[in-house]
Amino acid sequence: MIKIGVVDTTFSRVDMAKYAIEVIRNHLPEAKIIRYTVPGIKDIPVAARNLLLNEGCAAVITLGWVGRKLVDKYSYIVSSMGIMLVQILTGKHVIDVTVHEDEADDPEKLVEIAIDRARKHALNLVRLVKYGREALTRYAGKGLRQGLPDAGPLKE
Amino acid sequence: MIKIGVVDTTFSRVDMAKYAIEVIRNHLPEAKIIRYTVPGIKDIPVAARNLLLNEGCAAVITLGWVGRKLVDKYSYIVSSMGIMLVQILTGKHVIDVTVHEDEADDPEKLVEIAIDRARKHALNLVRLVKYGREALTRYAGKGLRQGLPDAGPLKE
Amino acid sequence: MIKIGVVDTTFSRVDMAKYAIEVIRNHLPEAKIIRYTVPGIKDIPVAARNLLLNEGCAAVITLGWVGRKLVDKYSYIVSSMGIMLVQILTGKHVIDVTVHEDEADDPEKLVEIAIDRARKHALNLVRLVKYGREALTRYAGKGLRQGLPDAGPLKE
Amino acid sequence: MIKIGVVDTTFSRVDMAKYAIEVIRNHLPEAKIIRYTVPGIKDIPVAARNLLLNEGCAAVITLGWVGRKLVDKYSYIVSSMGIMLVQILTGKHVIDVTVHEDEADDPEKLVEIAIDRARKHALNLVRLVKYGREALTRYAGKGLRQGLPDAGPLKE
Amino acid sequence: MIKIGVVDTTFSRVDMAKYAIEVIRNHLPEAKIIRYTVPGIKDIPVAARNLLLNEGCAAVITLGWVGRKLVDKYSYIVSSMGIMLVQILTGKHVIDVTVHEDEADDPEKLVEIAIDRARKHALNLVRLVKYGREALTRYAGKGLRQGLPDAGPLKE
Repeated sequence: MIKIGVVDTTFSRVDMAKYAIEVIRNHLPEAKIIRYTVPGIKDIPVAARNLLLNEGCAAVITLGWVGRKLVDKYSYIVSSMGIMLVQILTGKHVIDVTVHEDEADDPEKLVEIAIDRARKHALNLVRLVKYGREALTRYAGKGLRQGLPDAGPLKE
Repeated sequence: MIKIGVVDTTFSRVDMAKYAIEVIRNHLPEAKIIRYTVPGIKDIPVAARNLLLNEGCAAVITLGWVGRKLVDKYSYIVSSMGIMLVQILTGKHVIDVTVHEDEADDPEKLVEIAIDRARKHALNLVRLVKYGREALTRYAGKGLRQGLPDAGPLKE
Repeated sequence: MIKIGVVDTTFSRVDMAKYAIEVIRNHLPEAKIIRYTVPGIKDIPVAARNLLLNEGCAAVITLGWVGRKLVDKYSYIVSSMGIMLVQILTGKHVIDVTVHEDEADDPEKLVEIAIDRARKHALNLVRLVKYGREALTRYAGKGLRQGLPDAGPLKE
Repeated sequence: MIKIGVVDTTFSRVDMAKYAIEVIRNHLPEAKIIRYTVPGIKDIPVAARNLLLNEGCAAVITLGWVGRKLVDKYSYIVSSMGIMLVQILTGKHVIDVTVHEDEADDPEKLVEIAIDRARKHALNLVRLVKYGREALTRYAGKGLRQGLPDAGPLKE
Repeated sequence: MIKIGVVDTTFSRVDMAKYAIEVIRNHLPEAKIIRYTVPGIKDIPVAARNLLLNEGCAAVITLGWVGRKLVDKYSYIVSSMGIMLVQILTGKHVIDVTVHEDEADDPEKLVEIAIDRARKHALNLVRLVKYGREALTRYAGKGLRQGLPDAGPLKE
């Protein structure tokens, strides 16, 4: 049985895991989802590590929320580097969904970004887990975006 | 017997460990608390590492204080990255409580932030140690904050 | 049989892998090319790692695209550090081709940069794989550039 | 026999090791001091590593000097991260004494900072080595500083 | 037989390796010099790693050139961190000679900096390899510089 890890935080202002889990259940119904909730983004990497190494997850999606202050940005870089290390240590994908609170002033817009990003990246995860390293190759160079409209490819 | 590590510094201007220890004693009375005091934040990660690997702590709470200067911020990033590495190395949570001296101009306010943050994160640590990876799931996406009022969830 | 890995992203707005693969096929026709497409640059290092450690690639070329925002730059630093770690872990070259969307305002120019950089670095990779550590020594100190005209050597 | 490592640089403009060694000799006369001088701060971590792993030092004090330019600050961050890694790798304290040339315009003041910081941190090192993890606990939260007057504790 | 590694780049605008090799040949004539040329600074650390781990070099000197743009500075930090990791991994010195193109506007001056820095650091390397950890101790705190006039010691 395939297991997928989902890590989220109590700092986040949107329950992004709900949307990610929905997508995973729809597209990978045979998977067991293992959820892990931590206080903030700096606690995410160790949770992802444990889901991969101790719980046997094939991949993890993480759902982080970053505040507007400079210290929040420091935390983001450190958390991001931690997720990087966990991937290199385990050889598994940890797809990182992060919303920065200063991406939009309007709270509704922010919610929209969060939900769209969580859903699209959950689908990316499913594709990579299900079909492997060429699952996304037909979209290579296509300027896809998550949380925002696609930028699209430039004319070559 | 469960052991919890507490790392603090002589650089800090508030004895945050006192408040963290109080919370741990109240909510996890069966735990043995092992304290380690170091000069400044860059000395914290090795102390946390040793409490986890040599003393057998199940988790560690660290209490750091960061000055107003740019070099203090550099130290914060490096210390933070060190705590990240210790967590990935050990697979244990190191809950990082940090107060930045420029979070408030009023010393009373700063003390308030420090105490509230130490207490709330000590409780986070207790919950994770006691109930595991879904202990905080009911607060996922709820916009909880430590040291400040909760931001609250956005309306989805 | 020699294997060369090619990692690219769906975030990119130019299908740079196409140009890199062309050069590799022309100059190293005996090589088997293994392609891996991921969502964005932060997913590149684990893909490169797996191509080197699991698929037995001799070297990898990665094709990344970085947006104009500050968060894109953070991602670039983290991704870059990840590629560094993968190289140190494996002892193999991971030649990193990155285009920053703010390198040019004109989309045509940007496409030109992307194609030239992908091609020239693919050739660098081929030379290193084929002829080893002194393959590029005759160009040492010559001020070569990829994606831009060569800066040339300074007069000693 | 206990061994203490002392790493310093030829870049530094004050012979800080002299003052640190004085303090160590006075307070830990039974220790053998092993000195290692490198060109600049980026060479410090490997020296500290070798003193700990190859020479059997119980702890190391490093004495670094950082110039005023931005590239000097980059070097500081990298050196600092290296010292962090060495500590996590070995489980030993590497107490880092760093003076930034822009901490004072007056050279006499700069010398004063350097000497005070080297002495006080040497004493910190001695205490940690001699009495262990609670040696500094009575100073926890007391706002101690090295190189500058103590900031003191805030009123709780 | 002692082996010394020399890593340089095709990005550089001065053939610094030539000057470094001259110094090594003069002061350490018994050494075998092994050269490795890579495209740019981010490719340096893996080359240094391989010279140390696979070729048995006792130490490595790296000769990097950094452009004026912000992305060049990012690359510098990542490359620098990579060289740090290689040193900690191997316990060997990797003496890093880097010239930043914005250190001087005048190309002649830039060439002068590059040559002086390469020569002086090659001599540092020779001394460390030949005489060990106290070879440079008589210059400790003397404010030595490479590529620029010595700053000299401050009056204690």
